[in-house]
Amino acid sequence: MLFFRNDYGQGCIPEIMEYMNTTNGHSFTGYGMDTICQNAKETIKKHIPDYDVDIHFLVGGTITNQTIIKACLKPFEAVIACDTGHIATHETGAIEAIGHKVIPVNNYAGKINPSDIRKVFDAHMLSYEHMVYPKMVYISNATEYGTVYTLDELKNIREVCDELGLYLMMDGARLGVALSTVDYTLNDLANICDVFYIGGTKNGALMGEAVVISNPELKPYFRFVMKQNGAMLAKGWLLGIQFLGLFEHDAFFGYAKQSVVLAQKIQSKLQELGYALFMKSDTNQIFVNVSKEQYQFLSENIDFEIWEKCDDHYVIRFVTSWHTSQDEVNALITYLEQAIEKKE
Amino acid sequence: MLFFRNDYGQGCIPEIMEYMNTTNGHSFTGYGMDTICQNAKETIKKHIPDYDVDIHFLVGGTITNQTIIKACLKPFEAVIACDTGHIATHETGAIEAIGHKVIPVNNYAGKINPSDIRKVFDAHMLSYEHMVYPKMVYISNATEYGTVYTLDELKNIREVCDELGLYLMMDGARLGVALSTVDYTLNDLANICDVFYIGGTKNGALMGEAVVISNPELKPYFRFVMKQNGAMLAKGWLLGIQFLGLFEHDAFFGYAKQSVVLAQKIQSKLQELGYALFMKSDTNQIFVNVSKEQYQFLSENIDFEIWEKCDDHYVIRFVTSWHTSQDEVNALITYLEQAIEKKE
Amino acid sequence: MLFFRNDYGQGCIPEIMEYMNTTNGHSFTGYGMDTICQNAKETIKKHIPDYDVDIHFLVGGTITNQTIIKACLKPFEAVIACDTGHIATHETGAIEAIGHKVIPVNNYAGKINPSDIRKVFDAHMLSYEHMVYPKMVYISNATEYGTVYTLDELKNIREVCDELGLYLMMDGARLGVALSTVDYTLNDLANICDVFYIGGTKNGALMGEAVVISNPELKPYFRFVMKQNGAMLAKGWLLGIQFLGLFEHDAFFGYAKQSVVLAQKIQSKLQELGYALFMKSDTNQIFVNVSKEQYQFLSENIDFEIWEKCDDHYVIRFVTSWHTSQDEVNALITYLEQAIEKKE
Amino acid sequence: MLFFRNDYGQGCIPEIMEYMNTTNGHSFTGYGMDTICQNAKETIKKHIPDYDVDIHFLVGGTITNQTIIKACLKPFEAVIACDTGHIATHETGAIEAIGHKVIPVNNYAGKINPSDIRKVFDAHMLSYEHMVYPKMVYISNATEYGTVYTLDELKNIREVCDELGLYLMMDGARLGVALSTVDYTLNDLANICDVFYIGGTKNGALMGEAVVISNPELKPYFRFVMKQNGAMLAKGWLLGIQFLGLFEHDAFFGYAKQSVVLAQKIQSKLQELGYALFMKSDTNQIFVNVSKEQYQFLSENIDFEIWEKCDDHYVIRFVTSWHTSQDEVNALITYLEQAIEKKE
Repeated sequence: MLFFRNDYGQGCIPEIMEYMNTTNGHSFTGYGMDTICQNAKETIKKHIPDYDVDIHFLVGGTITNQTIIKACLKPFEAVIACDTGHIATHETGAIEAIGHKVIPVNNYAGKINPSDIRKVFDAHMLSYEHMVYPKMVYISNATEYGTVYTLDELKNIREVCDELGLYLMMDGARLGVALSTVDYTLNDLANICDVFYIGGTKNGALMGEAVVISNPELKPYFRFVMKQNGAMLAKGWLLGIQFLGLFEHDAFFGYAKQSVVLAQKIQSKLQELGYALFMKSDTNQIFVNVSKEQYQFLSENIDFEIWEKCDDHYVIRFVTSWHTSQDEVNALITYLEQAIEKKE
Repeated sequence: MLFFRNDYGQGCIPEIMEYMNTTNGHSFTGYGMDTICQNAKETIKKHIPDYDVDIHFLVGGTITNQTIIKACLKPFEAVIACDTGHIATHETGAIEAIGHKVIPVNNYAGKINPSDIRKVFDAHMLSYEHMVYPKMVYISNATEYGTVYTLDELKNIREVCDELGLYLMMDGARLGVALSTVDYTLNDLANICDVFYIGGTKNGALMGEAVVISNPELKPYFRFVMKQNGAMLAKGWLLGIQFLGLFEHDAFFGYAKQSVVLAQKIQSKLQELGYALFMKSDTNQIFVNVSKEQYQFLSENIDFEIWEKCDDHYVIRFVTSWHTSQDEVNALITYLEQAIEKKE
Repeated sequence: MLFFRNDYGQGCIPEIMEYMNTTNGHSFTGYGMDTICQNAKETIKKHIPDYDVDIHFLVGGTITNQTIIKACLKPFEAVIACDTGHIATHETGAIEAIGHKVIPVNNYAGKINPSDIRKVFDAHMLSYEHMVYPKMVYISNATEYGTVYTLDELKNIREVCDELGLYLMMDGARLGVALSTVDYTLNDLANICDVFYIGGTKNGALMGEAVVISNPELKPYFRFVMKQNGAMLAKGWLLGIQFLGLFEHDAFFGYAKQSVVLAQKIQSKLQELGYALFMKSDTNQIFVNVSKEQYQFLSENIDFEIWEKCDDHYVIRFVTSWHTSQDEVNALITYLEQAIEKKE
Repeated sequence: MLFFRNDYGQGCIPEIMEYMNTTNGHSFTGYGMDTICQNAKETIKKHIPDYDVDIHFLVGGTITNQTIIKACLKPFEAVIACDTGHIATHETGAIEAIGHKVIPVNNYAGKINPSDIRKVFDAHMLSYEHMVYPKMVYISNATEYGTVYTLDELKNIREVCDELGLYLMMDGARLGVALSTVDYTLNDLANICDVFYIGGTKNGALMGEAVVISNPELKPYFRFVMKQNGAMLAKGWLLGIQFLGLFEHDAFFGYAKQSVVLAQKIQSKLQELGYALFMKSDTNQIFVNVSKEQYQFLSENIDFEIWEKCDDHYVIRFVTSWHTSQDEVNALITYLEQAIEKKE
């Protein structure tokens, strides 16, 4: 069965697995205080030459979002996010569980609008201490819909954050594919965001997200919050290995680009065949509307996710990963060509 | 200056103040284990003859909402509420602070729609453990807009709660005025809700909300949660006094009715004078649109709240209380008559 | 039955009740933003001429401790307290409920020892981020055993706090009786502590604790934490009334002194009669060991608390309040004289 | 430099690394719903033939303790633990961070005494709702001092838990080495404990703890708590691989036994050489007192931890792991023989 379910359905890129094997017998200090983590951080910092950042490696996305927000916000402070933001939907209330409200605003193709940030902020100031204090804006890049913020969009968000005294946090679980489609860099993000993270899990690592903190007031004591939150891996060098493997020879960027190219082929073909896209994606997640008959046919041959069940059709999602091959994409396209006939 | 700012701007009804004075020298056991609280509970229970309920007295609305929800929900469970619900807006994230997500749904004149409950529940079941589990529906009655649920509306909500296994909690901060306009009773509410509370603060008490728990599975250990949450008053009999004063001779219902009658006079007059109501209220809160000139004139003579600032007009609110007199209403109406001329 | 159970078993001093009556019909702004609260704060500030403090009125002790600590500490920071401290024992885990560890150290007659503070701090620094970060010292004055810190003891604690960068918080639920036995003042406490509170509930108020914050870094946004924590009373002026009544003509100090004088008479008499004191108290709580026979006899005539049940004897507690009269003390002493015969 | 710092300082046993390599290209369903996790659970269940258990794989110890306790306890409930228990000391307040008090009791060689459990419970019942409700006993096996509970000790703890209605939870971060020294089994533990976990991290896995829940009332919705707590690994099959590698051919037991044998050689030699043991260990952690001169000499050649700094000596710890060889132990012993001369 063809696998287009998600971008975290296979192990790791060969560059990482080789490190896993070669270092397996070595002895390391625990909790991320080892030399591999140190090297991995230095390697990432080479991509951020202009800013002084702290880097921490955590295991997965939800605990990373939770740990960052716990470290940044006071009890009564809240985070503004798109209604489609991962923290607003698919983390089982992880942010509320640590005491913070997620204030949802409308998304536009998965993105947040600066004017909505200002509107929400102003509305909260009116009742002041009777409402939470919005103190952070959370954005995902690439978004949960596969779209990517332009540099101008990011600058506009930064501007409103500066004006209102808000932190800007970027969830970069899919930052690799985002960066492969734009002209800004990790270095730029260190300037635009107060804190962001570079996703490993969804771009070829076994696990791991690299948190990059550039705002100096958010740096102290971060490891206390990590430990308290259960986010400090005992064999921490394993996370260092992931990011060394990803960044030493820029595999991070190469695999991301490749998965975007393949996904965009699928999206183009879908349009060419007359399927209705649910959302035009910039990256490696493709969302398309199919009839129930088409769904039935496709699901017998392909492993993918239903994104939404509507009365007369389903929204389904195809995702490419570091592991997806041209052959698999060709095979998928063949099924899609056959399925187009199945429409009622 | 005329006071129509809110219904918690004066002390207590004379029936309560008399008790305050006559009991002041007596000695009581602390923390609500006294005879006055016992009597007050028995007096309330006479209004709920058909159901076996536990009653607890807490100081104010926010801590009561917080304590009930903390006592009822498991960590990953969430509460569905109108986007206008008090817990969703004006409690500074008190529910999130204890770890629970408030899932907002659209309000219809301040009320929740059963079909929206079902829709939200179904959407959460689709992603299951990746989303919070909606386990409680929170409604305010009267609502934050002064409207009141009909018996049929409550039964329909109860039905969907039964079907989906949800608790129904009613915030009764303004239950007095609600009950003065409908044909259902406290006894009916004990049947319809799993837990509700009877507001004292906004209906003539110095302070105090009486929590009524009818669902047996929510009764055990409630006092532990109260104490842990800082919601157990040392001189607990003071809360007993409030509810004895309110319920011994049904002052609770009398004052509520009186304040509704006066408020409705204001609302009728507003319509008669040609003001545009923001929302047609059933109870003691009246919302009306005024021009900035009208606002200016009124605010020089009357103490009231701005509810919303729109570009070309303001929504303002007049509230009557147990203390409002016919004379004050007449004076307000005179000002309203004068203000109508001020419209641009 | 004679009442020596506690110091929060009767209503309020006449000075307060008079205010309650005379203001009952007036209209006030809510949430403590009224003129009475403003006056009450100014009146307290006259006792603190040398320091710029913020004052807030909260309802009761547990929620005050919880709110202060929530406002002061970061998630991973902890508070050091005596093992007999109220937050360490009798608040149902209210501090842990908001996420902070209470680190217990041995008490010496209810007091904390500066060397134990240092010892605990050093032990935590050894494992650093794998342990909580001790950031606050909590002391009760008078202590839960009725003892009082001397000025030198407080200065020594302050010194170690300064050295280690710790906040010093004083739980002043029984500050009135403490101050009646020493030569330091509220003004001194504003210098020694970062934050403390003046207990109303246990010194003649219906309810209420006045939080005094002198450390500027702890002042901002305190009302947000109050509201989020359910600690902001709607009819806030009622708390202002309590403290205006207590401080306008120094009733606070007078009643405290009187209750200490009466309690000390009881303590002297107990010693004279040959009872074994459990702890020598400086204030209005007296702890004494009695045989089970003595307990039996006394409990038939007096309402008091068992503090501890030992195999062959009980520790019991007599407490005087603003309401206790010389006659009641005489009657108690008569019973104590009779009970002395009952010893096995 | 010789490595005796801890048992989580190297990668994984070859059995696991082989699986890592052979499965790396395969596609799997995420979040632990894959076939490898299913197989791994079945393999563990073969060791627990008599009880119906739920098994979940989590990444590390702190988050596992936190997730279990969050899933089991109501907000006001607390966990009793030794003052040396991991949750009481070295998890940066992770349990308090989710709202629960850890009630410390004295340890006896790292173990808890049933009579202390009863004593603590009774003391809490005396003040009832004014104190937390002790609902769980937490024990570590092997303990933080390397000692192991005997079957009788466990049965006695179980008995007091049954009597008082307490859950018994076992932290099995080092369960492998414990089981290698006793005659009870995983099957027995499923009967004795309500919930326990099998540590992978400290017994040859890259990471991972296997939670085993036998009490049916603790089973429902556990995955919700995992996800909310950030404890659900996206590429969950990686955890399945760890436990399949450990249990398929009983490598788990073999490596544990080997590390204990080697550690016990070290301990015997220490005694033979005249060193003073700090604590007699049953397993793979050896604690010994050394002079500062001895410490100096040893630390130049061996990587190990200081456990405690006393005025005139240090307590140091040597730990063996799955990776420790006989040669390394011999080399260590040679250093120990040389160091014995260095004693002042």
